[in-house]
Amino acid sequence: MSLPDFQIAAPAVDILPALRHKIDTKTKPVGALGQLENLALLIGLIQQSLTPAVRQPEVIVFAGDHGAAKAGVSAYPQDVTWQMVENFLAGGAGINVFARLNGVALTVVDAGVAHDFAPREGLLSAKIGPGTANYLEGAAMSAAQRDEAIAAGAAAVRAAAARGCNVIGFGEMGIGNTAAASLMTHCLTGASLPECVGRGTGLDDAGLSRKRNLLAQAMTRYRQAGGGDDALEVLAQFGGFEIAQMVGAFLAAAEAKMLILVDGFIVTSALLVAARLQPEVLGYCVFCHNSAEPGHRAQLDHFGATALLDLGLRLGEGTGAALALPLVRAAVAFLNEMASFESAGVSDKEA
Amino acid sequence: MSLPDFQIAAPAVDILPALRHKIDTKTKPVGALGQLENLALLIGLIQQSLTPAVRQPEVIVFAGDHGAAKAGVSAYPQDVTWQMVENFLAGGAGINVFARLNGVALTVVDAGVAHDFAPREGLLSAKIGPGTANYLEGAAMSAAQRDEAIAAGAAAVRAAAARGCNVIGFGEMGIGNTAAASLMTHCLTGASLPECVGRGTGLDDAGLSRKRNLLAQAMTRYRQAGGGDDALEVLAQFGGFEIAQMVGAFLAAAEAKMLILVDGFIVTSALLVAARLQPEVLGYCVFCHNSAEPGHRAQLDHFGATALLDLGLRLGEGTGAALALPLVRAAVAFLNEMASFESAGVSDKEA
Repeated sequence: MSLPDFQIAAPAVDILPALRHKIDTKTKPVGALGQLENLALLIGLIQQSLTPAVRQPEVIVFAGDHGAAKAGVSAYPQDVTWQMVENFLAGGAGINVFARLNGVALTVVDAGVAHDFAPREGLLSAKIGPGTANYLEGAAMSAAQRDEAIAAGAAAVRAAAARGCNVIGFGEMGIGNTAAASLMTHCLTGASLPECVGRGTGLDDAGLSRKRNLLAQAMTRYRQAGGGDDALEVLAQFGGFEIAQMVGAFLAAAEAKMLILVDGFIVTSALLVAARLQPEVLGYCVFCHNSAEPGHRAQLDHFGATALLDLGLRLGEGTGAALALPLVRAAVAFLNEMASFESAGVSDKEA
Repeated sequence: MSLPDFQIAAPAVDILPALRHKIDTKTKPVGALGQLENLALLIGLIQQSLTPAVRQPEVIVFAGDHGAAKAGVSAYPQDVTWQMVENFLAGGAGINVFARLNGVALTVVDAGVAHDFAPREGLLSAKIGPGTANYLEGAAMSAAQRDEAIAAGAAAVRAAAARGCNVIGFGEMGIGNTAAASLMTHCLTGASLPECVGRGTGLDDAGLSRKRNLLAQAMTRYRQAGGGDDALEVLAQFGGFEIAQMVGAFLAAAEAKMLILVDGFIVTSALLVAARLQPEVLGYCVFCHNSAEPGHRAQLDHFGATALLDLGLRLGEGTGAALALPLVRAAVAFLNEMASFESAGVSDKEA
């Protein structure tokens, strides 16, 4: 198969002055709600409405295994990927707790875990393979697998759209996937490899040093084989199936004109690819938090983005997206519900 | 009357290792939930429980007028104070929207507005006077008024405690109260006056310059009259009735072992006084957001505090507290609901 087509248009900006006027006449000093005002503008723009709404918000967690994990790029054994998928399905993981708390539906996608799951409510099977190949030896996936994964991620989002979802976030699980994201971030932002490599789930100093060496070897191999910085090539070379599926998920969500809640480091590595393919996707994104994983900084700088939350989170799973949703609801609520100076009979600033 | 007594004890720390163990055995890398982990520790400590709970959360908004407002320290006319109280009572202000959205009860206290309100559901009358005196000419309030205000603020919190509230935030409304908070912050943190003075509700450059000059005059007058840095003296000299009531509110909330959601610049100026009187109050506080008002930085630095949110908010009213509550709920929820490695059958980090 070949790469699917996505029709993504930047929202029409005609509505911006009316949105700005509505925000500025609320009973508050101009600008006093800070980033919530920007968020209200963004949602109004995406929905082309002065009275936007959050409908059927959802987080889709994509899980996949990485061939390089066995080389020692993570503090945890590879089995944790499937064990955590079981934890998601049983409702006991961080993302379950925050999604329940904040009224977010949760779908788990087996994008390519090295384990056979029994079919279950809430588990979408879209396995591209039982984990990727080891990028220390060659490409993590073939071009055909990559394109199949992009299509599968898009399909998961289109199913959410059919359920009425207009605000979506993505999460991921995959032992070794901070390493994959580090390599992708290095290639796609130009930040140095050491800047892009962190402790992931909690490597100690020796582990971090080993991870850095392994990733430098992977880059050397790739460059010596003539590898460049083409986004799709980088994705196939170093990505995971969960990352490739998120690329398609981003593109389909923007196509469906959803507000996209961008989680942390690994999710944003997928956005690096999606935004190279279709820069308009960025017009649908809100960056939910600053991850404690250092490469996330390089990603946010690359996009010139400011995140909503800065809590030192580094769990993944889409937890940052689920935790940011109350701020999205707050932005929508003040735009819809706050009185204006005129309606409340409050004197405006002296001219 | 004289200053009421408050019995405030720091929480017993015996429970900390058990809390830490519970947090560290959740199915996540150690520390991966960042500040939410600190928040869970704090709530568990305050409630002396491994299964803490958020009960009947409430925001109390204290409103008062300032004699100095007519001298030109604000961009808005003084009438906005009572007009905004009416807006609170009608449900149209920012704090109403965020309190409704996040399931927070709201009480409005007339601590000293220069206006007569008809009695209303949700309005607590605790008027110390029709606004303070002008601190450009003399003390804003007498020692007796200050002590009465502290007692009234404490009474408002005790009423909330009687309703079953164990998580409380304070908000304020009072045209001119960033100026009062600037003077108090200068005296009580040692930060320079210019560092403590900002645009408040939105002064332009000329307005900011006028405000700075007026506040420098007020300080000169106070120092020439022999005024020092005693917290209660500073409060009577420059404070508002709403600020003095919040001092009592902080002390009563700590006495009642509530988690206290600390809002922005003006609320924190009250905490500067409360913490001088009883440093143990700080053990019950979580700082909810970084205000865009510059003096808030000096306050947070004084306490060595890190805030939960950094959204460029500068609305006051307790909006930062109401917006932070979902993060408090998230901290409690992960502590209570997340599976442990053992219960979920997930392999822990390799030793």
